[in-house]
Amino acid sequence: MRTIGVALLGLGHVGGGVVKLLAENAAAIEARLGARIEVRAIAVRDPGKGKRVVDVDKALLTTDIDAVVRRPDIDLVCELIGGTTEAKAAVLAAIAAGKHVVTANKALLAEHGAEVFAAADAAGVDVYYEAAVCGGVPIIRVLREGLASDRVEQLWGIVNGTSNYILSTMTETRRAFGDILKDAQQLGYAEADPTLDVGGGDARHKLAILASLCFGSAIDCDAIAMDGIDTVEPIDLDYAEKFGFVVKPLVIARDHGAQIEARVHPAFVPANWLLADVSGAKNAVYVQSYALGPSLYYGAGAGMLPTAMAVVSDIIEISRNMAMTTRPARPRPREARPLMPLADIRARYYLRFGVHDQPGVLGQLATVLGAHRVSIQTVVQDADREPVWVVVLTHEAREGDVRAALAEIDRLPAVRERARVIRIAS
Amino acid sequence: MRTIGVALLGLGHVGGGVVKLLAENAAAIEARLGARIEVRAIAVRDPGKGKRVVDVDKALLTTDIDAVVRRPDIDLVCELIGGTTEAKAAVLAAIAAGKHVVTANKALLAEHGAEVFAAADAAGVDVYYEAAVCGGVPIIRVLREGLASDRVEQLWGIVNGTSNYILSTMTETRRAFGDILKDAQQLGYAEADPTLDVGGGDARHKLAILASLCFGSAIDCDAIAMDGIDTVEPIDLDYAEKFGFVVKPLVIARDHGAQIEARVHPAFVPANWLLADVSGAKNAVYVQSYALGPSLYYGAGAGMLPTAMAVVSDIIEISRNMAMTTRPARPRPREARPLMPLADIRARYYLRFGVHDQPGVLGQLATVLGAHRVSIQTVVQDADREPVWVVVLTHEAREGDVRAALAEIDRLPAVRERARVIRIAS
Repeated sequence: MRTIGVALLGLGHVGGGVVKLLAENAAAIEARLGARIEVRAIAVRDPGKGKRVVDVDKALLTTDIDAVVRRPDIDLVCELIGGTTEAKAAVLAAIAAGKHVVTANKALLAEHGAEVFAAADAAGVDVYYEAAVCGGVPIIRVLREGLASDRVEQLWGIVNGTSNYILSTMTETRRAFGDILKDAQQLGYAEADPTLDVGGGDARHKLAILASLCFGSAIDCDAIAMDGIDTVEPIDLDYAEKFGFVVKPLVIARDHGAQIEARVHPAFVPANWLLADVSGAKNAVYVQSYALGPSLYYGAGAGMLPTAMAVVSDIIEISRNMAMTTRPARPRPREARPLMPLADIRARYYLRFGVHDQPGVLGQLATVLGAHRVSIQTVVQDADREPVWVVVLTHEAREGDVRAALAEIDRLPAVRERARVIRIAS
Repeated sequence: MRTIGVALLGLGHVGGGVVKLLAENAAAIEARLGARIEVRAIAVRDPGKGKRVVDVDKALLTTDIDAVVRRPDIDLVCELIGGTTEAKAAVLAAIAAGKHVVTANKALLAEHGAEVFAAADAAGVDVYYEAAVCGGVPIIRVLREGLASDRVEQLWGIVNGTSNYILSTMTETRRAFGDILKDAQQLGYAEADPTLDVGGGDARHKLAILASLCFGSAIDCDAIAMDGIDTVEPIDLDYAEKFGFVVKPLVIARDHGAQIEARVHPAFVPANWLLADVSGAKNAVYVQSYALGPSLYYGAGAGMLPTAMAVVSDIIEISRNMAMTTRPARPRPREARPLMPLADIRARYYLRFGVHDQPGVLGQLATVLGAHRVSIQTVVQDADREPVWVVVLTHEAREGDVRAALAEIDRLPAVRERARVIRIAS
């Protein structure tokens, strides 16, 4: 039986899970694949470290990534280091040495995907990355193979588990963002530095990967507009519920032909959407495609075994592909289309204004909004407090117009607090 | 550029959709695949028929299936005839001639899958069948490849769109089954003979395919216990809502090791499950697996373009595989494990009894249930009518015990109507 030699770079939680799953499923994988998968080297920072997630043969451990990725008995390199410096160098070195690569590294692919895939094409090797987006949910495989004959028009995703956990818990308890974050950190659901999760950066990486795959275009990840969930207040959740919405941390992408719309922000999601029921740390992606219409993919977006499962499924598929003598072309970004400027996107908006309790304020707000072509669908005034909340749900409007109107409104003498803005998903 | 020759058997809605998608996406498929896919023959019953779903070159049409599946310029045969007689002969002839096969035929695979796959193994060809279960939702690919390194423990599915449409509409309107069915037939959502859909036979075919794939065992499709949705009455939907459930047409499968549990029936689904929100004609499968935990796959289970999309994605994947010189082993049923007898399955039950309005009846019911180890969780009596409804939700009980108790209860003089039974999903 043929044996595929695998090197793991990194032996943290996901790496440990990969070792565990490969060992537990060895017989099933061999039966299914007609080949054996063998971990032949594991690059770690400190081979002397005592306690690890799994027991491994100490003889496999090494610190020399450069040597590992060049070893002739290694067919496939599994990059689980994270970050974009060392990981990028290791992945490019592995590709240059003719090794196939499996990676769970969303930052690497979002920021340097074009370079990595071009190198892989030139070297004739595969780069698989199912674990980089939504952990164990096989969304990459679904988009690449399941919908291979379809054309994705738009997608909405909940792709950051930490943000979803925090907003879900805020929705349940109406406690403040900071409190819930502190609890989440103590429970291990949020990092000590939560910026990448709650600020939207992690979701932006995943969105760049999804949009690039769906729309066949390189995406400038850093140019994707992003808002964090840290500005959402319990009162906004009250208003969301009142109007029939749930606040969710969304990524949204749409194909506009010449341009691609992509954005990351908390959004009012209609309560009757399936995405509104995706709670806790779970992930889901709702896809609208030409032939299939709407479809949804839901599951664990993080965690040791779910993520490791996605990595091992990639290892299995590459091992299958290795039986090929000629490689078929892979879908690669065919052209780089520009992102739609944020000012040009169109959405409905939830706007919350804190104003002095005096007559005529609502008229002033409405006048400014109207002058900027922002049409009001619903208005609620909660006058039994100071400042008075004036809450507006708009019809669809251009983001640039909304921002211009808000800048003007923020300068009105009657306005006490800067307007809070949450876009409404549609 | 290499060209893959395809023969279509059948040119109904799905066949027409396949022709349409292949034509519309030709450039994208070629770029992605590095090969061209060409429809070289279409077997139809009547080549002279005027109006078709799509315009095709009349020179492609033929009635001679036997000749088509043997043509040397055909690499792949796409079976879209349906049924198990002619389709089976055609598929086996194609396999014998060394052709790969794509089929959307759930009945064929559920009833003769073992024979078809064994023939394909012997001939060294692929049989793909994504369209056979849940239309365009890529559930087969997800289970086979996305979760290749995982182990499915159980699944719950809504896999018959017609039944889901009827129960969803009954839930919304509380109109009777027969009325909604008649409307559905007029709208084209249900067949003139709806037995296969509302009786559970279609869902049973799909469940046999799913369970066989998930649990690596041949499944005796005809032995799967099945109840139709035609016995559900609006009053049952009222009680479901009262207790926090929604009635859905479910398939359920569980791996019990030595045995496999598989069943098809309407079920009380907890209202906070994602499956409870899968309405209209949509399909979804909720999978519980060892590594990933829960995951859900949702979308259009039928329709021309969704189904055709799944067929074309299979054609693309086989075309990719054709670049291989050696074929990897495919997952096949490894052993035939028996189905768990229906009497041995355990579930919670909703029981509705129609009894005479007289004292002591509830005591009699409870005594019989208790004697058969069926423990009551909740009881409601609606006494302002004749017969009085006594509704019982049980704790988990053995089906055989429940049925024995009900047989005894049905013979009590105080009982006016046979008990209605709906299992509760858990």
